[in-house]
Amino acid sequence: SPWRALLQRALDANAHLKHSTFFQLVSSHTISPVPLPLDTLTDGRSFQATVGAAGRPANRTVVFRGFQEQCDKIQINTDARSNKIGEIREWPLGEICWYFTDSWEQFRISGIIDVIDGSSLDPAKLQQREKAWFASSVKSRSQYLGQSPGVPVANDDHIKDVHIDPSAGPVDAYCLLTLDPEKVDYVNLKSNQRLMFTRTQEGDEFNDWMAEKVSP
Amino acid sequence: SPWRALLQRALDANAHLKHSTFFQLVSSHTISPVPLPLDTLTDGRSFQATVGAAGRPANRTVVFRGFQEQCDKIQINTDARSNKIGEIREWPLGEICWYFTDSWEQFRISGIIDVIDGSSLDPAKLQQREKAWFASSVKSRSQYLGQSPGVPVANDDHIKDVHIDPSAGPVDAYCLLTLDPEKVDYVNLKSNQRLMFTRTQEGDEFNDWMAEKVSP
Repeated sequence: SPWRALLQRALDANAHLKHSTFFQLVSSHTISPVPLPLDTLTDGRSFQATVGAAGRPANRTVVFRGFQEQCDKIQINTDARSNKIGEIREWPLGEICWYFTDSWEQFRISGIIDVIDGSSLDPAKLQQREKAWFASSVKSRSQYLGQSPGVPVANDDHIKDVHIDPSAGPVDAYCLLTLDPEKVDYVNLKSNQRLMFTRTQEGDEFNDWMAEKVSP
Repeated sequence: SPWRALLQRALDANAHLKHSTFFQLVSSHTISPVPLPLDTLTDGRSFQATVGAAGRPANRTVVFRGFQEQCDKIQINTDARSNKIGEIREWPLGEICWYFTDSWEQFRISGIIDVIDGSSLDPAKLQQREKAWFASSVKSRSQYLGQSPGVPVANDDHIKDVHIDPSAGPVDAYCLLTLDPEKVDYVNLKSNQRLMFTRTQEGDEFNDWMAEKVSP
């Protein structure tokens, strides 16, 4: 894909910064249908329509875990117990905003997110999840044995040290997300150039990428 | 507000980094009601219900332009011709994700966004907009005289130099956004501590902030 070369160049140019692999992931907020007031028809029957009510958008910093092999899917590790999992399952469109602080480049990458936890029925996906689990450090794996994220803790609670067997496979709380890019909006704030990459669809097949220069 | 002290400390600790005032703003995507298939009732009348269809979430890097005086509203400059304006008008909930790369602190600030362009009927808001306009550099003001963002440009187009009268007031394309925080989710990745601040509402008045320590 044409944007992968730009992204690789940005990763290389910013590799000396620990935070260069951090980006912001926004998932679509929950769409919960809200019933409209009960309406009565002239024939005495009543019906209830619903409108889509939008919740709140959610935005959080996550870490780039590389591309999936042989494709452009971006991998992210996450805790299956966090709020975003439910949100993403309901509405799987997401957008990454990745700003490279040294080279002044921004990539906005939008696409479909796939949630791969231990309940997946696809052996290939379970294998990807296992691979991504072993690719992360033992320290980061041990986070998934801690308390659920966002649960109130008492002030005198100590974070317990948890030990994890380095050879043990993924725990239940470990979830792999993959984002399959459909559109990449690239802007370079030094050269003041912006490129828009769009994946073109033909029938059931996504094939090529189209690039267009747009005003910044 | 209790979280303001934490944010000020983070701003001070990261002040040597040009990008410390950059954060990611996500606006809710467009909610466009989609008509359901026409339904016919037993009395022969037809009705059409709609469901909410969600578009795509949008996430972009913007610059912190300070707090509005005497309150906690966060100011952001934007181009009235960009897509986000329409999105925000339709659904004004937004979330900021602000990661401080040196101190490893993340603030997720969610709240209501107000769009203040030249068409505002509120003299106080127009005054805020003018003030924010003059507070930004002449160079950044001149951006609003350029081409609309995201419009295709030919490869041989040269970016024209635009000159702006430093004493001239805000141009049409200049828009001030303010985000009024309702919830602040703070996490410090060095100390592994997380605090959740929530504004409490009593009747029509928002008054106090509640802080709770939660698991990271």
